[in-house]
Amino acid sequence: MNPSLQPYLIEREPYYRAAGNEVALFAAAFARGLPMMLKGPTGCGKTRFIEHMAWRLKRPLITLACNEDMAASDLVGRYLLDVQGTVWHDGPLTTAVRHGAICYLDEVVEARQDTTVVIHPLTDERRMLPLDKRGELVKAHPDFRLVVSYNPGYQSVAKDMKPSTRQRFGAIDFDFPAPALETEVVAHESGVNPALALQLVKIAEQSRALRGRGLDEGISTRMLVHAGALIAEGIGVHDACALAMTTPITDDRDLLVALAGFVEAQFGPRR
Amino acid sequence: MNPSLQPYLIEREPYYRAAGNEVALFAAAFARGLPMMLKGPTGCGKTRFIEHMAWRLKRPLITLACNEDMAASDLVGRYLLDVQGTVWHDGPLTTAVRHGAICYLDEVVEARQDTTVVIHPLTDERRMLPLDKRGELVKAHPDFRLVVSYNPGYQSVAKDMKPSTRQRFGAIDFDFPAPALETEVVAHESGVNPALALQLVKIAEQSRALRGRGLDEGISTRMLVHAGALIAEGIGVHDACALAMTTPITDDRDLLVALAGFVEAQFGPRR
Amino acid sequence: MNPSLQPYLIEREPYYRAAGNEVALFAAAFARGLPMMLKGPTGCGKTRFIEHMAWRLKRPLITLACNEDMAASDLVGRYLLDVQGTVWHDGPLTTAVRHGAICYLDEVVEARQDTTVVIHPLTDERRMLPLDKRGELVKAHPDFRLVVSYNPGYQSVAKDMKPSTRQRFGAIDFDFPAPALETEVVAHESGVNPALALQLVKIAEQSRALRGRGLDEGISTRMLVHAGALIAEGIGVHDACALAMTTPITDDRDLLVALAGFVEAQFGPRR
Amino acid sequence: MNPSLQPYLIEREPYYRAAGNEVALFAAAFARGLPMMLKGPTGCGKTRFIEHMAWRLKRPLITLACNEDMAASDLVGRYLLDVQGTVWHDGPLTTAVRHGAICYLDEVVEARQDTTVVIHPLTDERRMLPLDKRGELVKAHPDFRLVVSYNPGYQSVAKDMKPSTRQRFGAIDFDFPAPALETEVVAHESGVNPALALQLVKIAEQSRALRGRGLDEGISTRMLVHAGALIAEGIGVHDACALAMTTPITDDRDLLVALAGFVEAQFGPRR
Amino acid sequence: MNPSLQPYLIEREPYYRAAGNEVALFAAAFARGLPMMLKGPTGCGKTRFIEHMAWRLKRPLITLACNEDMAASDLVGRYLLDVQGTVWHDGPLTTAVRHGAICYLDEVVEARQDTTVVIHPLTDERRMLPLDKRGELVKAHPDFRLVVSYNPGYQSVAKDMKPSTRQRFGAIDFDFPAPALETEVVAHESGVNPALALQLVKIAEQSRALRGRGLDEGISTRMLVHAGALIAEGIGVHDACALAMTTPITDDRDLLVALAGFVEAQFGPRR
Amino acid sequence: MNPSLQPYLIEREPYYRAAGNEVALFAAAFARGLPMMLKGPTGCGKTRFIEHMAWRLKRPLITLACNEDMAASDLVGRYLLDVQGTVWHDGPLTTAVRHGAICYLDEVVEARQDTTVVIHPLTDERRMLPLDKRGELVKAHPDFRLVVSYNPGYQSVAKDMKPSTRQRFGAIDFDFPAPALETEVVAHESGVNPALALQLVKIAEQSRALRGRGLDEGISTRMLVHAGALIAEGIGVHDACALAMTTPITDDRDLLVALAGFVEAQFGPRR
Repeated sequence: MNPSLQPYLIEREPYYRAAGNEVALFAAAFARGLPMMLKGPTGCGKTRFIEHMAWRLKRPLITLACNEDMAASDLVGRYLLDVQGTVWHDGPLTTAVRHGAICYLDEVVEARQDTTVVIHPLTDERRMLPLDKRGELVKAHPDFRLVVSYNPGYQSVAKDMKPSTRQRFGAIDFDFPAPALETEVVAHESGVNPALALQLVKIAEQSRALRGRGLDEGISTRMLVHAGALIAEGIGVHDACALAMTTPITDDRDLLVALAGFVEAQFGPRR
Repeated sequence: MNPSLQPYLIEREPYYRAAGNEVALFAAAFARGLPMMLKGPTGCGKTRFIEHMAWRLKRPLITLACNEDMAASDLVGRYLLDVQGTVWHDGPLTTAVRHGAICYLDEVVEARQDTTVVIHPLTDERRMLPLDKRGELVKAHPDFRLVVSYNPGYQSVAKDMKPSTRQRFGAIDFDFPAPALETEVVAHESGVNPALALQLVKIAEQSRALRGRGLDEGISTRMLVHAGALIAEGIGVHDACALAMTTPITDDRDLLVALAGFVEAQFGPRR
Repeated sequence: MNPSLQPYLIEREPYYRAAGNEVALFAAAFARGLPMMLKGPTGCGKTRFIEHMAWRLKRPLITLACNEDMAASDLVGRYLLDVQGTVWHDGPLTTAVRHGAICYLDEVVEARQDTTVVIHPLTDERRMLPLDKRGELVKAHPDFRLVVSYNPGYQSVAKDMKPSTRQRFGAIDFDFPAPALETEVVAHESGVNPALALQLVKIAEQSRALRGRGLDEGISTRMLVHAGALIAEGIGVHDACALAMTTPITDDRDLLVALAGFVEAQFGPRR
Repeated sequence: MNPSLQPYLIEREPYYRAAGNEVALFAAAFARGLPMMLKGPTGCGKTRFIEHMAWRLKRPLITLACNEDMAASDLVGRYLLDVQGTVWHDGPLTTAVRHGAICYLDEVVEARQDTTVVIHPLTDERRMLPLDKRGELVKAHPDFRLVVSYNPGYQSVAKDMKPSTRQRFGAIDFDFPAPALETEVVAHESGVNPALALQLVKIAEQSRALRGRGLDEGISTRMLVHAGALIAEGIGVHDACALAMTTPITDDRDLLVALAGFVEAQFGPRR
Repeated sequence: MNPSLQPYLIEREPYYRAAGNEVALFAAAFARGLPMMLKGPTGCGKTRFIEHMAWRLKRPLITLACNEDMAASDLVGRYLLDVQGTVWHDGPLTTAVRHGAICYLDEVVEARQDTTVVIHPLTDERRMLPLDKRGELVKAHPDFRLVVSYNPGYQSVAKDMKPSTRQRFGAIDFDFPAPALETEVVAHESGVNPALALQLVKIAEQSRALRGRGLDEGISTRMLVHAGALIAEGIGVHDACALAMTTPITDDRDLLVALAGFVEAQFGPRR
Repeated sequence: MNPSLQPYLIEREPYYRAAGNEVALFAAAFARGLPMMLKGPTGCGKTRFIEHMAWRLKRPLITLACNEDMAASDLVGRYLLDVQGTVWHDGPLTTAVRHGAICYLDEVVEARQDTTVVIHPLTDERRMLPLDKRGELVKAHPDFRLVVSYNPGYQSVAKDMKPSTRQRFGAIDFDFPAPALETEVVAHESGVNPALALQLVKIAEQSRALRGRGLDEGISTRMLVHAGALIAEGIGVHDACALAMTTPITDDRDLLVALAGFVEAQFGPRR
């Protein structure tokens, strides 16, 4: 493997509990070289899944958080001025294409069109990346793979992917884990006992039922882990839930009262 | 042929099954030097057709995916700073014009006006490309040809081509192949037997009937090939159809249920 | 004549059939130095006319297709970095002004304001071009002339020329040639016989009657020539008319049916 | 006088016929150093007036046509890269301020705010121009004067000058000259006899009555001079009026018919 | 005092007649280091007041006219390319902060957000200016003071200052001086006798009553001084009032008639 | 500690009176490395709190005031041209990440998306900052912490934080201190006696009741301190309250009358 990819290898197994046959499906599509799209709500484990798969498949993983101010040159590279004049610097996508890494575009719907269009020739039979500014046609390394993710829940029509982009991908749907599984995850990662972890999971489930009714997203598994860890370190449950679970997700007074009610339903009123 | 065009030659015959006399028509217009416009839905085979024609006519093919963030200088070239000061670098269009390649502008309606206007003097009797920034008038190589494509189905009025641009082109209409032909293509490219290929084609046809009723585009031939290949490698038909055909094209829950229904109509309920 | 203008001289007489006294009028205004404005629909022959006049008057012709992404510096020139530091490069307008060519701004209404305003001091008694960035005042060569064109039919109010710009020009109205004349042109340029050329002209006339009723522009003379040439090379009339005349100008299914009807009215139903 | 101002001196007396006491008023305000604003319709003679005054007062005149794409640095100057590194180049306003010319900002309402605000410290007691990018405070030469012009008739509210800018100027209202005076001007400048000049003036007057009723501006004195000159060179009156007076100012068919009617009222029907 | 501030010292006492205790209040706030905000209509004397205070307190005054095209780097400074490579140039705000001047941001509401936010760390206990691009934290000189002004009368909601900015300032309200005081100012500055000065003041007062009824701002004290000076030099009162007081402030015909009426009420009908 | 962080250490204890257990909660979340979000109205003490915590925890504090014109490169750094060619300069965020400081993003909702997205990989298990333009992956120093703040009261929906950003933070709610506590703060910081401080606090409380009824924000604690200090230096209470408390926060005449009424209710009518 090219030494420039070394820092992108994941050394320790990222903790991931599969909810179905997503590991086998992804592996089959991966073997065929099919570009993949991971769909699902924020914080449900898409990023953890791709990190787990990269570790499992022993491939370096280059992650890019897409946003509307990211230019195509942020992906493919640019000329920089040096003592020798302008010198080309490969961008992270080009690095992945040239040397054979997984390139993971997180929240791809936030990207501008020129960024999305750049990946087209990489996702059909051509498997190549034209560096127009350099006049170079990079043929993708056999180990190069492209994976994108997005949250189908809250992006606007204006930011929907173009059909001609969508058709180039296989897709897997993700959601929050089932309660028993999520409880196991929270207990494992935060250090609280399973009974308390289950109480936190129940609060999260109630919050997720408010999605689309004022709340953009419910409380994620990650937030439960944070709250659990604070409790494990001796912070009171009400303070920990407020700090790590409810106060961050909304500024609406009515919703905050409702969320506090979910906490009290599990842990009784605040002393 | 100029050595800089070598990487753009297509070495192996791209698989293409003609639906009508489009090969002869294109060849006649090509012989006359008429700029050509390929119209048709996403994934119906326009790109494959031009690759096939480039191979058949033994011409190098330079493809550019247009987008609204692409500047005219991305096409014609720019000055870059070097040890000798600024040095001009031909863009891909200029390379094609100067040395005699086919330049293929994919999804041309996505381009900005300055990009579209650049091609005007190349598409009338003048056949020349003024490099204003360089003060050079490039006379087109006799073998230079211009081909553009777009999908008339979903671009907005704002992105329609100007009449003064349209009038410079001849045009050929493309559509998805007839069922028998598409079945043959899917079987040939994915490795599944014709009976199963036909089942996949039937699902695609039903999805295409939903165009304009919530779905921007139906399932393309390319997606059928992906699904077929996964099935040929041992993935279950329902999983393969979900991953490669239905989950990618929409996030709408109702449409996803309808698409799953088309799959079950062919393959029975999921075990 | 300055050698830098040599490539802009038109060597062979461009074929032009006058419709009225436009040649004499233009020559009189030209002799007086009056800036000229050519108005008329796309493809009716404005560009051919100015090429013909440039040939007739033996003046080099520098053509610029205006667009909203064109900056004033694309016209007047800019500093470029060289081994000697920054070096000024005259833009095409400055070249014309300094050495005495005709500068032809095609579709001038598409240009941005700073581009339009640049021509003001060239179009009154001053006849000079201030290169503000260079601190130079270029006095126009006695042979410098400015000609602009636009299509009054489809530009929006937002893109109308400012009165203070309009008042600086003389103007000539152009339209498609009368049927007999257009038939002569089509036969001459495409190689078909006059009877067939007339049939093509009749289709074009019917299409032009649809302007403003769904069609932005009708079929132009140039398109008839393309269709005629394909027929002369052995392509069937229906295929040639579809490829070169009707398919390019619209994506609307109903209009395409109407246009196909005009073709069948001349040549009978498709075999 | 500084040699860099030499090209801006007006050598021959520009022909100007005063309509009232504007010459004396301007001279008094000029002596006091009051910045001046010339208001009036396009083509009524504001630019000719300031050229005449510059000639009369023997002051160099630097004219700038304002537009919304003009940046403050186009006025004050900028750093350019040279063999010695970046070198400052005074812009035209700075040249006028430093060495003592009249700076004339034509159509000042078209300028962006940063351009307008740049002139503030030049128009109060401070009379200085801060070159922020250079860290220099240029004290205005005693002979520096600022004059701006605009047409109050057709700019939008969005482009109105800010009160804090307006209050810094004295203002003179201009309009088209009275018929007798305008006839004298047209005859003098075009070479036609006074009777024909009067006929042209009558057409112009009728067109000006259409202002605000479809026509942004009527026919200007300058256009009458162009038409007269063409007639003097032997072009027919109808052709000359169409080319130089009516066709340029509108694309509206009804208005063009009305304008042609005014011509026929003076010269009878077209032969 | 740092020599770079020398040109910003005000040498002669600017004429200022106090309307209340604003001099003492400002001096107290100044002594405490409180950033100050001067509010009041255009031309009422805010700029003269700060110049007077700078003279009185013997502090250099750096004035910047804010506008929406001014970038943060116009305030804090930027890197410029030199023979030694890029060299940092302090902007005017940094000069004031580093060496201890008063920085006066005129019409601060016109500035963009990044400009306004730059001053935050200068206006609380930190009193420092982070030059992010240079990686330097400039600690404000003890003599640095910040003063801003704006006209509360006509800026839009969109341009209102953010509460988090407002809270950092003390504020003083300004208005036009009372008639007796304004008369004294006009007589003193223009050279006309007090009786005539009072007549001019009465016209101004009537115009100010039209504010918000078509007129953005009434006639300012500065305009009265201009008119008075022209009269003192022999221009007729009607001409002087038109040139310096009424014509500049509006283009509305009805308002101009009303303003002319105010003039005639004082000086009788125009001869 | 890295010497580049030295200027960011807070040497003297910033005065802070805790309102609840926020110090302990923050310390626990800080120990765990959880990114923190401080929510609360402008001027209620969020900035003072984080300065106090930075002092208490003996960590350098790098503060950045976010705004919509701030680019990602203002945070992470950029290439600058030097005698050796382009040289990379760490931005303030990168400095904090690399060497281990607290990075405090004030008013984070004002930032553009690319700025917000930059912090994502710093706020999950990865704790790393990819410098894409440099091709470097900075692993966060163990002492690096991220803290953001915003005012939930007046930002628009358009500027709300994305759920995927919110979920990465713990949050603490702040509000103005209770009257007794605020009185103590004002007396301590301004030097007035507690009785007068309480009167000022009462005025502030009444102003805060007007929030959402014309007033964006009430009078902050900081403003009371300013007013108190002016009074302590001998300025009359009415003048001091007008200058430091009421005039700055609104331009609305009715609201100013109401605020003046609150002052008179405490201190009687102005003499």
